[in-house]
Amino acid sequence: MPSTPFLSGAPRPETQDGVFSREEVALANRNSGILLETLGLDITPTGAHYLLTHFDVPILDDRDFQLSLDGAFDAPMRLGMDDIRAMPEVTEPVTMECAGNGREGVSPRAHLMPWMYEAVGTSEWTGTLLAPLLKAAQPRADVQDFVFTGADYGFDKGHPHHFARSLTPDQIAELDVMLVWSMNGLPLLPQHGAPLRIIVPGWYGMASVKWLTRIDAQTERFQGYQQQQGYHYRTQSGDAGLPIQRILVKSLMRPPGVPDWVTRKRWLKAGQVELDGRAWSGGAVPIARVEVFLNGDWHEADLTGATGRYAWTGWRIAWDATPGVHHIMCRATDADGHTQPMQASYDVAGFGNNSVHRIEVHVADAE
Amino acid sequence: MPSTPFLSGAPRPETQDGVFSREEVALANRNSGILLETLGLDITPTGAHYLLTHFDVPILDDRDFQLSLDGAFDAPMRLGMDDIRAMPEVTEPVTMECAGNGREGVSPRAHLMPWMYEAVGTSEWTGTLLAPLLKAAQPRADVQDFVFTGADYGFDKGHPHHFARSLTPDQIAELDVMLVWSMNGLPLLPQHGAPLRIIVPGWYGMASVKWLTRIDAQTERFQGYQQQQGYHYRTQSGDAGLPIQRILVKSLMRPPGVPDWVTRKRWLKAGQVELDGRAWSGGAVPIARVEVFLNGDWHEADLTGATGRYAWTGWRIAWDATPGVHHIMCRATDADGHTQPMQASYDVAGFGNNSVHRIEVHVADAE
Repeated sequence: MPSTPFLSGAPRPETQDGVFSREEVALANRNSGILLETLGLDITPTGAHYLLTHFDVPILDDRDFQLSLDGAFDAPMRLGMDDIRAMPEVTEPVTMECAGNGREGVSPRAHLMPWMYEAVGTSEWTGTLLAPLLKAAQPRADVQDFVFTGADYGFDKGHPHHFARSLTPDQIAELDVMLVWSMNGLPLLPQHGAPLRIIVPGWYGMASVKWLTRIDAQTERFQGYQQQQGYHYRTQSGDAGLPIQRILVKSLMRPPGVPDWVTRKRWLKAGQVELDGRAWSGGAVPIARVEVFLNGDWHEADLTGATGRYAWTGWRIAWDATPGVHHIMCRATDADGHTQPMQASYDVAGFGNNSVHRIEVHVADAE
Repeated sequence: MPSTPFLSGAPRPETQDGVFSREEVALANRNSGILLETLGLDITPTGAHYLLTHFDVPILDDRDFQLSLDGAFDAPMRLGMDDIRAMPEVTEPVTMECAGNGREGVSPRAHLMPWMYEAVGTSEWTGTLLAPLLKAAQPRADVQDFVFTGADYGFDKGHPHHFARSLTPDQIAELDVMLVWSMNGLPLLPQHGAPLRIIVPGWYGMASVKWLTRIDAQTERFQGYQQQQGYHYRTQSGDAGLPIQRILVKSLMRPPGVPDWVTRKRWLKAGQVELDGRAWSGGAVPIARVEVFLNGDWHEADLTGATGRYAWTGWRIAWDATPGVHHIMCRATDADGHTQPMQASYDVAGFGNNSVHRIEVHVADAE
């Protein structure tokens, strides 16, 4: 148990807009975002996918690795990686986003990883569907939660725990959860959960437990920290909150022109420019429309399609760039009719901020 | 040419210790550091190697890619990737570090990418030695610089340019510069310079030009921004400065115990602990000694060896951890007798900070 004040769950420091602490910067150095210029690609290059690591990356040995299915199963199991890789294989491109993406734009800002726009990526995940494996282990009729526990361990607000999340039998039936051992055709990298993780397509990243070592069937609801305290939408501190699940509709633009190294502001020459980017929404809901704010008005972009049900959709639009400073925005609408807001509603921990993406572009006279 | 103030080279904002701007955090989100827990591995996992991208990652097509050797060569060349991959192949593990690693610890801090300890990594690079290729192109006797130009383009302090660096004929003769197309056995990833880059072993990362498209032989010294203005040690702004070259002696510790998610402070139980980490020095100078500060004194660690001349050396030491808060440090000494300082001397841009690595560890009573 914790014996020192920093682990006792003391309130996190207050923040001020536009001013950041050393702890926030240490998290930003350690965790990594997508490079927005790779938004031109269907699949995010290996190593450029966003990566958030709560605790430390465990370095696990493939050879002696075991996944246990325990608890309220009539046919509990212990499986090695050879057993698991022999199961029917499926590959699916899935867009994953951190629930905290956009936290920096929520005021007052929670003192956590200060993501701006970059905590997203799309990879081709290879593994097997989880539902048939759970069925083979014969869960009892009164199972309420399947609990997925990772090998990663540490403290969060004074609670020491292995990272663990749960899904109900209904959620398992509804979602195409995958048990995954490969990413972009390569063995899973240590930092992405090697040798085994789950992917919960269409949900924010916290559900896709890495370094999966145990699946426990429970006849009571799971009370783990990351399930019951963490990862809830809350408008006030202390609220029970609503559990975070599906990814909200969102879009990003590939920054046009060339950057200034330090400010990341963009510069280009006047004339015809093709703008492009990506849009996505959770739960396999297709993107219906992307609009781009140019020259004082919203214009509808062309959708260039997605490579899979759970993968982002490309979009593009022509722009006749005129000299001056422009603030370009993009916003997506999904088939359920949800549109990105100009400013998402407040959340205590800065979760689910799907406000429009804005980019400042400086257009120079054509020569 | 630039037409807007932000690109005109206006002075960068002043900074305050422990307080960071939004621009610094945007750079920290975009650029990525090593995960210190992977310091137990000889080779940094793909995707976990530090990555600093000055401008945007260019997405280049392998098939129509050409490297040109031009200027003061008697036998100038244009080479495709097939030509280059047919050259004699060499694989070498090389430790690379950003010259700005540790910038955050320099006071006053330069308003740039706020690295703490994490801008380092070791990969196995595969390619061909550069010197024979340059020789085959027959440089004239009066060549003063070989200039290496990348496809990446942008602004730095108001200067628009392709990233470019140079090496003299003497440096080419002395250094084992590699022309590289593969990293850790995989084709070079876009963000690491695909399809072709150089690696200058033992020098800070700025010399290892990514997305290499041209090598120009010049009969005058190269005056490019990244060579003559950027990447100099300066004790005062406006000094001519000294060019940054070799990596200074340094060591890092794998953080012991388990972390708190937000503060990254470490917690472990009292008793025997094995501490370990890595140490390196530029120019293929071996590590002579690593010392660890424990219980009020420096203790010499065991060196566990390096996998190559240009790769870091492992070290380890046993520690009988007693309850309480400890500040552990490590420092390396190389075979030239250089030892890491407690506090490196001031540099205007925060370059070359090789101060000792400090970690705060909270040790609880054993149960």
